[in-house]
Amino acid sequence: MAQLRLAMAQVNPTVGDLEGNSDLIVDYTRRAADAGAHLVVFPEMVLTGYPVEDLALRGAFVDASITALHALARRLADTGLGDLPVAVGYLDRHRNTVAPTRGQPAGAPHNAVALLYQGQPVFTSAKHHLPNYGVFDEARNFVPGTTLPVVRLHSIDVAFVICEDLWQDGGPVAAVREAEAGLLVVINGSPYERGKRDTRLGLCTRRARETQATVAYVNLVGGQDELVFDGDSLIVHPDGRLLARAPQFEEHLLVADLELPDAVGAGMWGASADAPGITIQRHLVSADPVPAYEPRPAPLAPRRDEIGEVYAALVLATRDYVHKNRFPSVLLGLSGGIDSALVATIAVDALGADRVHGVLMPSRYSTDHSVTDAEELARRQGINARIIPVAPLVEAFENAVKVDGLAEENLQARVRGQLLMTLSNQEGHLVLTTGNKSELAVGYSTLYGDSAGGFAPIRDVWKTLVWELARWRNAEAERNGQVPPIPEHSITKPPSAELRPGQLDTDSLPEYDVLDALLDDYVGTDLGRDELVAAGHDPELVDRVIRMVDRAEYKRRQYPPGPKISTRNFGRDRRVPITSRWTV
Amino acid sequence: MAQLRLAMAQVNPTVGDLEGNSDLIVDYTRRAADAGAHLVVFPEMVLTGYPVEDLALRGAFVDASITALHALARRLADTGLGDLPVAVGYLDRHRNTVAPTRGQPAGAPHNAVALLYQGQPVFTSAKHHLPNYGVFDEARNFVPGTTLPVVRLHSIDVAFVICEDLWQDGGPVAAVREAEAGLLVVINGSPYERGKRDTRLGLCTRRARETQATVAYVNLVGGQDELVFDGDSLIVHPDGRLLARAPQFEEHLLVADLELPDAVGAGMWGASADAPGITIQRHLVSADPVPAYEPRPAPLAPRRDEIGEVYAALVLATRDYVHKNRFPSVLLGLSGGIDSALVATIAVDALGADRVHGVLMPSRYSTDHSVTDAEELARRQGINARIIPVAPLVEAFENAVKVDGLAEENLQARVRGQLLMTLSNQEGHLVLTTGNKSELAVGYSTLYGDSAGGFAPIRDVWKTLVWELARWRNAEAERNGQVPPIPEHSITKPPSAELRPGQLDTDSLPEYDVLDALLDDYVGTDLGRDELVAAGHDPELVDRVIRMVDRAEYKRRQYPPGPKISTRNFGRDRRVPITSRWTV
Repeated sequence: MAQLRLAMAQVNPTVGDLEGNSDLIVDYTRRAADAGAHLVVFPEMVLTGYPVEDLALRGAFVDASITALHALARRLADTGLGDLPVAVGYLDRHRNTVAPTRGQPAGAPHNAVALLYQGQPVFTSAKHHLPNYGVFDEARNFVPGTTLPVVRLHSIDVAFVICEDLWQDGGPVAAVREAEAGLLVVINGSPYERGKRDTRLGLCTRRARETQATVAYVNLVGGQDELVFDGDSLIVHPDGRLLARAPQFEEHLLVADLELPDAVGAGMWGASADAPGITIQRHLVSADPVPAYEPRPAPLAPRRDEIGEVYAALVLATRDYVHKNRFPSVLLGLSGGIDSALVATIAVDALGADRVHGVLMPSRYSTDHSVTDAEELARRQGINARIIPVAPLVEAFENAVKVDGLAEENLQARVRGQLLMTLSNQEGHLVLTTGNKSELAVGYSTLYGDSAGGFAPIRDVWKTLVWELARWRNAEAERNGQVPPIPEHSITKPPSAELRPGQLDTDSLPEYDVLDALLDDYVGTDLGRDELVAAGHDPELVDRVIRMVDRAEYKRRQYPPGPKISTRNFGRDRRVPITSRWTV
Repeated sequence: MAQLRLAMAQVNPTVGDLEGNSDLIVDYTRRAADAGAHLVVFPEMVLTGYPVEDLALRGAFVDASITALHALARRLADTGLGDLPVAVGYLDRHRNTVAPTRGQPAGAPHNAVALLYQGQPVFTSAKHHLPNYGVFDEARNFVPGTTLPVVRLHSIDVAFVICEDLWQDGGPVAAVREAEAGLLVVINGSPYERGKRDTRLGLCTRRARETQATVAYVNLVGGQDELVFDGDSLIVHPDGRLLARAPQFEEHLLVADLELPDAVGAGMWGASADAPGITIQRHLVSADPVPAYEPRPAPLAPRRDEIGEVYAALVLATRDYVHKNRFPSVLLGLSGGIDSALVATIAVDALGADRVHGVLMPSRYSTDHSVTDAEELARRQGINARIIPVAPLVEAFENAVKVDGLAEENLQARVRGQLLMTLSNQEGHLVLTTGNKSELAVGYSTLYGDSAGGFAPIRDVWKTLVWELARWRNAEAERNGQVPPIPEHSITKPPSAELRPGQLDTDSLPEYDVLDALLDDYVGTDLGRDELVAAGHDPELVDRVIRMVDRAEYKRRQYPPGPKISTRNFGRDRRVPITSRWTV
């Protein structure tokens, strides 16, 4: 057996920031070198950030990525890091494009990996399986690669694949065993989803057994529009043992000492028999093993609990959206209700209380506790808060046009939305939108009213989960000997939009536990009407709720983006027509 | 040679309306039968409407489409139309799905065509080439088919393919010549784009020559969210002659008497040598030719001029969005400027003046002509108009929060947006948004202000084209001896948002002819910075404008949908991150 100290850099790049991302790679490579690593691997498209979407179709951006890759290789060498091989994901293009084929992405872009060593790339290779479902549009943006690169490094054969290539049978991963690689490095941009963590570990375990290679899975971390990458990089032995695991939702350099089989002979080169269309390409970095050394124990990050994991995802997504878009601070309406209380708490955890600004906007229908609960929230967390009563503004509109019924309810919500946007323009804050997924599903919101803003931290969080998260956060504070940030009354009182006297959500909606269960089966599992009824949901409620969901599509399109935490949300995961007569 | 009277039903279905679309198919089949047709063909996915997007992934919808197809076949037979073969596009699924493959669309849906005859389908077949670029996501929503169906009908061999299959080399169209078909029917859902008409005719001519078959191209007509299908169905002889052409932007039954080669022998059946992966499947409807009859001349619809074509697309898209979403009427702000004047005129042409409601909302900075020009517009067209001064509303906000500069400008725009939305809620109108593509590109608009609304008829129209369309529409009126609908002063005065005293668009933007030329090269042609400069644009302006475009992505996401008339617009055609540091 041969030894190798592998460093996995679980980092948080920014889309389009080639310079900043290059700095990040140099920084982590230096740390890896300082830790004595023999190989350092970075996630998928770390150089450009991920996903770049249609930026892949802009020739100038592809050029810039390729130029940045070569500059990075030289810079690493120039700063004394040239002898440490560095695997990075970047945006490349297919070299031997003849004429562009109709329907092929312009410029034939590649989602690529390169190994940088002594000032230049040892190899470049491209992702083979291009996911084109859920949030992914890679068949639109890339052309597939056809090689499995295998590098001999310190007497170990190391194979490299990219993300989806690990998930799909066939393709490069099928050629890994044939190539007799001892280590399979997988670079990933795999977004967080509740429960996906176990799926990933299960997959890595299966592939390690199949390929008889140790699998090293390195993932991005950080928020990018609606995606949150959770990191959770891991290493699995061919016998199925989990050797190392990085923490979720934070940047981390995972360093692990591995024992790997010695490479023997020249190995198979060329067309793979097991994976049609894949060519195994071998490259030599160093034939000699490293001198024997005393391995250190590898880290195994403890797991977060299920709710704590969701909370951490929302905090990271909010922090990155604000920072990466260069907003100095955030602003939100505080109603005394649970949704705005949770969003404020997420914002404080993401940015610090001094960057969070709350506005209390009581109307003629607001209860006393709407103000006292909001004030108590602001006091507990040290949020900057002010009160602006909306009655004079609502009256000004009522003097200009006749309003009653739903139009009057919407008017109040819009006056509030407009106040927040005006303060945002005047003072520079990003407005956070506080609506939850249950409201978004059934359209229980006002266009340009409570749905106004730039980022919606809980838009993929069912109302029942909103309560769970609030309770979890308060309990977490108590565990740490702190004051619970959310007033108990905001959690326990019955939800109300307070747009009419005595109004409760249950006037127009069923209880949220009933509603959320139905919505999750309809939207999350894509069941049809008859299947929903067969699953035990009340037939009348099914008909009523799915009609509400189908009618609310336009409102959802206009809603600000927010972090995706579920398999099916209302973002890029679900693309349905606005104009449609179909229901269920 | 054998004779065949072919009917092509260029119709306007509604997505999801299986019942209504079935009625439409029966109606046009009866008309075709009354005209003595021997075959009637309908466009792509006419039964479900098109595109259905992720509705294809809902099993209940696929089931409903298949059920509706069989019900339609029986209904045609029951109402005496069973002897007329009817080709229809619909949503089907792959029958022999073993286990679902990762990354394959759930339920393996097919974009399919069936030939209905004597109460049942003679064949079903699926689209092979699935476009996944521009506005299309078909690799996400469908699995490809593998057959070329060829039907012997009155001694003529008729082959059927679907839309993109005609555009791409290889696939079923490559098997058509080998199959020795005399007629190639192509069913299409091909959206309008400026200049695409000539491209389509060129393609049909090329394919007719290659396949030595007469090509009959039948297309959808009508608006569906951002897409406008223009019809323009046509028939081309193998020698390249255009035999028949339907009008654009209206439903039409095109009936043409064709002379086609007699089918000889049993013909080739099975795997195609010319098109790997395609199987030729033959079906017999009737071996005998129709008795000789006197052919009638086929219609060749006259062409619209280039600007008239764009205008017709905008009118049809607006009409269908309003009707298909069941709005009784529309409402828009009338500023006296050219954008709102053009949108009002489009709305009147689409819906009639009695369904168009205008609101004049002068502020303290409004010029006198903003009111007089708007009143003149309303008077000329008979639009319902009212005046609501916004000063008291703006003042109410100014009393509540401190505002100046840009925040004050946005405040006025948002008060107007809110007035329109309040009237919409109170009275039931759909709000039309009046912004143009130049504004959308550089972000020259206010979130929830002038960008509020449900449909934006000119969001893909550069400002320079707005003026051209207005002049064209006035000239068209004069040609017909009518009063020009748009006041000349609205066309000739310098554009201004009137949000500050004496403000002009040119205070913050270059002249629109300079700006639009640059934007079209940047957004339309995807040129990078250096290419833009090389193309002759001022380097400083390039840097300034592309920064404005890249920063305005969030605003564009929040903008209402509107008809796509160009190859690259700011809708589903262009998918870029909000969070990005990349510029050019």
